[in-house]
Amino acid sequence: MAIKVHGHPYSPPTKRVLLALSEKGLDYEFVPVDMTSGQHKKEPFISINPFGQVPAFEDGDLKLFESRAITRYIAYAYADKGTPLFDQDPKKVAITSVWLEVEALKFDVPGSKLSFEILIKPVMGRTPDEGAVEQAQGELAKVLDVYEARLSKSKYLGGDSFTLVDLHHVPIVHNMMKTKVKAVFDARPHVSAWAADILARPAWAKVVAKLS
Amino acid sequence: MAIKVHGHPYSPPTKRVLLALSEKGLDYEFVPVDMTSGQHKKEPFISINPFGQVPAFEDGDLKLFESRAITRYIAYAYADKGTPLFDQDPKKVAITSVWLEVEALKFDVPGSKLSFEILIKPVMGRTPDEGAVEQAQGELAKVLDVYEARLSKSKYLGGDSFTLVDLHHVPIVHNMMKTKVKAVFDARPHVSAWAADILARPAWAKVVAKLS
Repeated sequence: MAIKVHGHPYSPPTKRVLLALSEKGLDYEFVPVDMTSGQHKKEPFISINPFGQVPAFEDGDLKLFESRAITRYIAYAYADKGTPLFDQDPKKVAITSVWLEVEALKFDVPGSKLSFEILIKPVMGRTPDEGAVEQAQGELAKVLDVYEARLSKSKYLGGDSFTLVDLHHVPIVHNMMKTKVKAVFDARPHVSAWAADILARPAWAKVVAKLS
Repeated sequence: MAIKVHGHPYSPPTKRVLLALSEKGLDYEFVPVDMTSGQHKKEPFISINPFGQVPAFEDGDLKLFESRAITRYIAYAYADKGTPLFDQDPKKVAITSVWLEVEALKFDVPGSKLSFEILIKPVMGRTPDEGAVEQAQGELAKVLDVYEARLSKSKYLGGDSFTLVDLHHVPIVHNMMKTKVKAVFDARPHVSAWAADILARPAWAKVVAKLS
């Protein structure tokens, strides 16, 4: 099998890459990385990702890291397969690029923090930092205010169709729906409808089934 | 004039966009945003960037924000002008995309923090937080260790030619060279040579001259 994803089932960036492959209907091998033994901080893993973080990706002799660079590669290299994940029109691509940056730099910071504090720490036997949770929830609410205005004008964040922008959000939105932060989404009707829509994608159900 | 950049002369993201325009040899109008009076948090600015941050960009009827989305648009929409800022080969583009993410998510976090603490705070009459400076400098050093290894194998971060990846670093690297953090660059010979190379670009000299 040509495509390999080295990752961890609890890692939102890993799931982001698996979702892109699933939307494209591509076969791949999932290679679990044993993070408890620090496998991601040693060779051979760090020869793919020198920062020692999951996921890492191989497609034949091409080796990549950074989940959003991997999904972008998948979207373009397999443009003719499965779900189109990018518009063709250059101005629409530019708008999509804006919201890709917003996800990575604005949404993901509090989203990943909340995911770590509320869901991952208890699995590790640690206690969530309630102050950090409250702060991140406040930051997330401000981002979702902007999303609510955006989604009142277009069905998806990048435009009228589902693109990489929405896809990049799925793993963290999925996690948030299992926590008290769901209320922050529920309080915003367009955000809430968008979240339900992107979580209902059959390609995501396949990723969840594969990892569980 | 069709292209307008709304920004601030002290803002690294603003300078990132101006450098992309300068590399492409494009004419533009620079519209200074009065951040001391909070102009960036009010209409009409927030109708372009709902997050209320500089820069914002207009090219005819296309309105964009997020500096890296703007530079990507400039690189592709004006591909045939000035310096090519992207490879053509899809696998090389994928590698470039990885390092674009590294700049935005790894380098820029400590880099912008150091820039703010050491250079901006004193201008505002505030005192740098030395603890925050030390922590950010440690984080930056780890990133530059990875860069040193990378740059021992390829002349630029994205590959053998100057691309958007290197361009995105210029404003923060320029700032760091004016501070004690220069020593962190100087201690790594390939990083140091790369920094000197990207700062010596004539397009950057034009941006510095325009803003001073």
